[in-house]
Amino acid sequence: MNPARSEPQPATPSQNVHDARWIARAIELAREAATNGGGPFGAVIARGDEQLAESSNRVTLDLDPTAHAEVNAIRAACAKVRDFKLEGATLYSSCEPCPMCLGAIHWARLERLVFACSRTDAAAAGFDDEWIYRELALPIEKRAVPTLQLAREAGLGAFDAWRAFAGRSPY
Amino acid sequence: MNPARSEPQPATPSQNVHDARWIARAIELAREAATNGGGPFGAVIARGDEQLAESSNRVTLDLDPTAHAEVNAIRAACAKVRDFKLEGATLYSSCEPCPMCLGAIHWARLERLVFACSRTDAAAAGFDDEWIYRELALPIEKRAVPTLQLAREAGLGAFDAWRAFAGRSPY
Repeated sequence: MNPARSEPQPATPSQNVHDARWIARAIELAREAATNGGGPFGAVIARGDEQLAESSNRVTLDLDPTAHAEVNAIRAACAKVRDFKLEGATLYSSCEPCPMCLGAIHWARLERLVFACSRTDAAAAGFDDEWIYRELALPIEKRAVPTLQLAREAGLGAFDAWRAFAGRSPY
Repeated sequence: MNPARSEPQPATPSQNVHDARWIARAIELAREAATNGGGPFGAVIARGDEQLAESSNRVTLDLDPTAHAEVNAIRAACAKVRDFKLEGATLYSSCEPCPMCLGAIHWARLERLVFACSRTDAAAAGFDDEWIYRELALPIEKRAVPTLQLAREAGLGAFDAWRAFAGRSPY
């Protein structure tokens, strides 16, 4: 899917109230995590006044490099609504999401994103993801992680099998 | 961490053998997933001849938009080695990873990446992530997902709490 750019709508008074409430909760989660062994990041997913999920960074607690607050919240919200899409929902994060989390936000079809600190603020605190943004923009042969393409013809067979399978679930 | 660009080293004969074996297994997993209800993508993580984890895309099976083959394999490999870093390991994917998975690959400190099909091949099969690459490169005010920065000053407090906490685990 390649969504058209949606013009931001003027916030309604109730949206402003929800935004203030949920970003404050995301920041509160980040503060709690900072002294509880996680990374100082928190996230909330809500539809209006209904909270679907909340989480904080659990990378070092869970030994899972993907356990950023935003990814955790997306996984929990999807489990709650029993859908891999979160249309109509807003993600609130205490900090601007990294490229991994932004990718997850897009795949989850979240409708809006609200964050507090910027990636520059995160870098000043020792959490620098600017280099990942730079890496993604580089051609493969210039990336820091050596990358090799191999066995493309064989790989195409998996897509052929997918196209031929009547029971597939496009997403 | 901002790693220096590491020059790709010439592959050793044994590395070539491992690469051929593990990329074939990643493709086999993709083919199996194509007709088992998942997306047609597979991934393996290995150190030399030791497989740490393997997985396929489980987005529609698990109702989890982050359950790409690469993310699943990273989480499983980290659980196996009981570490949030996979230094010295190679990720083999049946297809070029999307931005979410590339972000995860960087956070997991994987040493190498080998993939079969390109993102262009994936788009031809109906899996287009090119728009996510484009989105990440845009300034926030031009993105398809309306994005708002709010409560930055309050958010900075979480980083202050982190810096003041003696027991923090930097990563």
